[in-house]
Amino acid sequence: MSETIKTDVLIVGAGPCGLFAVFELGLLDIKAHLVDILDKVGGQCAELYPEKPIYDIPGIPEITGQGLTQSLMAQIKPFNPTFHLGEMVTGIENIGDPLYRVTTTAGKTFETKVVVIAAGGGSFQPKRPPIEGIEPYEEKSVFYAVRKMDAFRDKNIVIVGGGDSALDWTLNLHPIAKRVTLVHRRDDFRGAPDSVNKMRSLVASGSMDLRIGQIASLEGGDGQLEAISVKDKDGKLDRVACDAMLPFFGLTMKLGPISDWKLDMDDELVKVDVSTFETNRHGIFAIGDINTYPGKLKLILSGFHEGALMAHRAHHYVHPEKRLVFQYTTSSTSLQKKLGVA
Amino acid sequence: MSETIKTDVLIVGAGPCGLFAVFELGLLDIKAHLVDILDKVGGQCAELYPEKPIYDIPGIPEITGQGLTQSLMAQIKPFNPTFHLGEMVTGIENIGDPLYRVTTTAGKTFETKVVVIAAGGGSFQPKRPPIEGIEPYEEKSVFYAVRKMDAFRDKNIVIVGGGDSALDWTLNLHPIAKRVTLVHRRDDFRGAPDSVNKMRSLVASGSMDLRIGQIASLEGGDGQLEAISVKDKDGKLDRVACDAMLPFFGLTMKLGPISDWKLDMDDELVKVDVSTFETNRHGIFAIGDINTYPGKLKLILSGFHEGALMAHRAHHYVHPEKRLVFQYTTSSTSLQKKLGVA
Repeated sequence: MSETIKTDVLIVGAGPCGLFAVFELGLLDIKAHLVDILDKVGGQCAELYPEKPIYDIPGIPEITGQGLTQSLMAQIKPFNPTFHLGEMVTGIENIGDPLYRVTTTAGKTFETKVVVIAAGGGSFQPKRPPIEGIEPYEEKSVFYAVRKMDAFRDKNIVIVGGGDSALDWTLNLHPIAKRVTLVHRRDDFRGAPDSVNKMRSLVASGSMDLRIGQIASLEGGDGQLEAISVKDKDGKLDRVACDAMLPFFGLTMKLGPISDWKLDMDDELVKVDVSTFETNRHGIFAIGDINTYPGKLKLILSGFHEGALMAHRAHHYVHPEKRLVFQYTTSSTSLQKKLGVA
Repeated sequence: MSETIKTDVLIVGAGPCGLFAVFELGLLDIKAHLVDILDKVGGQCAELYPEKPIYDIPGIPEITGQGLTQSLMAQIKPFNPTFHLGEMVTGIENIGDPLYRVTTTAGKTFETKVVVIAAGGGSFQPKRPPIEGIEPYEEKSVFYAVRKMDAFRDKNIVIVGGGDSALDWTLNLHPIAKRVTLVHRRDDFRGAPDSVNKMRSLVASGSMDLRIGQIASLEGGDGQLEAISVKDKDGKLDRVACDAMLPFFGLTMKLGPISDWKLDMDDELVKVDVSTFETNRHGIFAIGDINTYPGKLKLILSGFHEGALMAHRAHHYVHPEKRLVFQYTTSSTSLQKKLGVA
């Protein structure tokens, strides 16, 4: 087991509410680590609508999801949070009052006084393609994400899908794989035109393969894939030998391991006290779309408010000896020093 | 009495929370009028720190009070709210369920289903200068604001103070008044250097007077001022004949007439239900710094959240026949049409 990471606060989810929580905590001298299953910050803003405008962030008549993420990253920069991306929190154990030990899918262990769940609609998880008998191969020779490119060096790999993830990994893995075969159900790709063109010229030059059709069956044993069968629109089967398969069928949202954290829930949402946004467990808070309370609206601006009140309660747990004096960034030189502007 | 103005919602206070409430109400097809005692929008942001940066508006690393006000005005433009500036709400009468008749110091009468108190720290009111016996002259020949410049045409007027208001009104009224005398306790002015220079050149050319000293007494009867006495630092008295006096000693904040509205209060703050931000009176809401509830923080971002939840409750009163469907500005074409972007 790797070394335990000690922190004041562990924020689960690096979407806009998780990011802004870093700011409110930082003003109160509270350090945060953030864990997110995505390989980038911004949550749904970055994953689902990076280019789409949002109109209801107060004081910002129009901003894209990506733009909001960038502005929040600039705003929290003075507090230098640590991000743990591409991993998911799994277990939680109460080891103090409050003190929690939290583990992640990447094998990390955190010891934290406060846990803030800012997981939005839940964790983004890859959609499983509708292929019979795929489960035994998962995480052995069928992967929904590329964690280390080198794992695919000199392998025959099959990539499945027609979007940017499928195309990007086709182009990225092509130079190191033995052979790449891209499989898509129709000869029309949703990915960036430039990526589509690059893929087509690799196919034209004979240095990779493209199969149009659906995956009908898998061959192999003990989790090790040996070949796949692709069925074209006329029902003709084509066998492709391979060592690994990477299906990119998009992401879906699931609540994930948090559902086992013994939190009072209401229809997959975490119940909170609206004066602190604390859950039924001391030191575990929930902010943003994942929580529920009377009157709750799933607005980003509400998650910001919830993060501010959470931070003031968290201060009691993190700095129990210090009295909290409420100050304004406009007038407090002390806060301005923390922000690096005074 | 002037015509009654009928509206869905009357917002008391045009600071940032009152302005953003227009946006949240507008998304739900609710029209708003706003009343503010200041002669401009923006509340404390515009009055107390127009040039000072604010660092804690989520998604905006740094913005001045004036900048935030401008951004909010741009954001609510599609909803075309009506502003009633330089006046204060006074009386309120319940005439329906809910329906209120609200009057203002400018003699206007509103009939509104919903009242939203967004009055911040209360109403800005002019500070009364420490001159004995000034009360009988107030609003007769002593004025703390200029409502109609023409009321001072061909009059001998005394302006008192050393800040921008005193200097600006000296320069603005000088062309129409018979004679302007500026009185300030010391020969040093806080106002904009350009205004100070203009005033000094008018004094040098003999077309207005400047007296350094403090006002010792007033002469007149039945509210009509006839002269003032200015005492200089050596105690010497100087009599200045005049028809009107305009003291500009800055503003102070008072709760004002709202304290008589039979609202449940806690230490000059209005108690609210945190699921709706409604007060104890049906259809009367309070958002922003003027309200209180467990965990309350006087942050602008909290007022934004409060306005959003208020709007959803207000919808029940304004459009009782319509079912409210929660939508996002990012994905709803219907909301985007209201915003003029689809």
